[in-house]
Amino acid sequence: MTDSQKYIIGLVFYPGMTSLDIVGPHQVFSVLPNVKLHRIWKTLDPIICDDGLTIMPDTTFANCPSLDVMCVGGGLKQQAVEDDPEVLEFFRKQGSTAKFVTSVCGGSEFLAKAGLLKGYRAATHWGMRQQLMTYLGVEVSTERVVVDRNRITGGGVTAGIDFGLTIASILYDEETAKIVQLLLEYDPAPPFNAGSPEKAGSEIVNKAKLYMQKLSNLALAKAAS
Amino acid sequence: MTDSQKYIIGLVFYPGMTSLDIVGPHQVFSVLPNVKLHRIWKTLDPIICDDGLTIMPDTTFANCPSLDVMCVGGGLKQQAVEDDPEVLEFFRKQGSTAKFVTSVCGGSEFLAKAGLLKGYRAATHWGMRQQLMTYLGVEVSTERVVVDRNRITGGGVTAGIDFGLTIASILYDEETAKIVQLLLEYDPAPPFNAGSPEKAGSEIVNKAKLYMQKLSNLALAKAAS
Repeated sequence: MTDSQKYIIGLVFYPGMTSLDIVGPHQVFSVLPNVKLHRIWKTLDPIICDDGLTIMPDTTFANCPSLDVMCVGGGLKQQAVEDDPEVLEFFRKQGSTAKFVTSVCGGSEFLAKAGLLKGYRAATHWGMRQQLMTYLGVEVSTERVVVDRNRITGGGVTAGIDFGLTIASILYDEETAKIVQLLLEYDPAPPFNAGSPEKAGSEIVNKAKLYMQKLSNLALAKAAS
Repeated sequence: MTDSQKYIIGLVFYPGMTSLDIVGPHQVFSVLPNVKLHRIWKTLDPIICDDGLTIMPDTTFANCPSLDVMCVGGGLKQQAVEDDPEVLEFFRKQGSTAKFVTSVCGGSEFLAKAGLLKGYRAATHWGMRQQLMTYLGVEVSTERVVVDRNRITGGGVTAGIDFGLTIASILYDEETAKIVQLLLEYDPAPPFNAGSPEKAGSEIVNKAKLYMQKLSNLALAKAAS
């Protein structure tokens, strides 16, 4: 692992984000040598994630330096945020200069809405592929991590770990990524073979869709109350 | 997924914990139907994790109800906390009545120090196996998730996701765990085959050990300053 390079990596936080989307890559990035991490939102107010966890940002849009890597995740309440002009402006501004423009899960919608995925292939959560493709015109891939020039995007939630390790290998080298993988003991052994729609089968997929809708409605109802 | 059962699940937070250790299972638990989650520490002050992330607890030791599931993770600064009599007392008290006493990564050391792993098999981070076995007398397993009666323990950091899904299948059923696995798109595809000491090989293991020591020293130096 080299100490000679320093990257400024910014992760965008927002109310209703999915904590694991962003904590996965954050954990990977935090172990990289000589990296400066920024957890960014409009204000420094606490962020309540869609799982109820409260996380603090430490950098505002206004005082955020130019990022080498910009990253955003998805969340059950992302639609309440992703059309906000202030948010879009931040993504456009940083996205025009960042070395890598990246997302995990539904975070690709933020990038698409800011015009940053035009002409690029991208991954997203399986339940959001149609939306990304049909309404936002992005060439959607079913790969877990997609590297298309300087756009790096991951699939749903837990894909953020594979995504983070991929970025580690690009920013540094394969050895560094392997060391981080070992430190985080990323030797997955899912108890069931149900991590993708194809593997889970149509009955589980249909139940998961209904359940996701219920969770989204609950999250939105809480946001409105 | 059934709506008829409600579990009270408590996750213990502490300064210097590894965020992904606890956010992995927290994310899994948060999607389960009719679960009440508590994020527990001595006080409601912000918790700074060892990766620099600041997370808020919402329940104190004093006002925590009896837990059905008690869970604790590891962290680079856990040794500064795990001998604290107040912490040990909390684990002993809750551990004596909880339906399931659980941990991820180095969290097994908390349970062992509170006497809750005596006569049980347990998992931990690969770098902490020797310590758990030799000094704390626990029968250490290299499995990713160990279920020994009502003690459920996971291996290092990312094992918390496999661990969470295993608990989901025990508290509910296989179908519920599969739905959660699909919602979190847990269909891992690590970019390298380096997630365990055996797979990574001795050169990477030795470099990872040195690097982990460096990270621990940095974390402790920051805590002392």
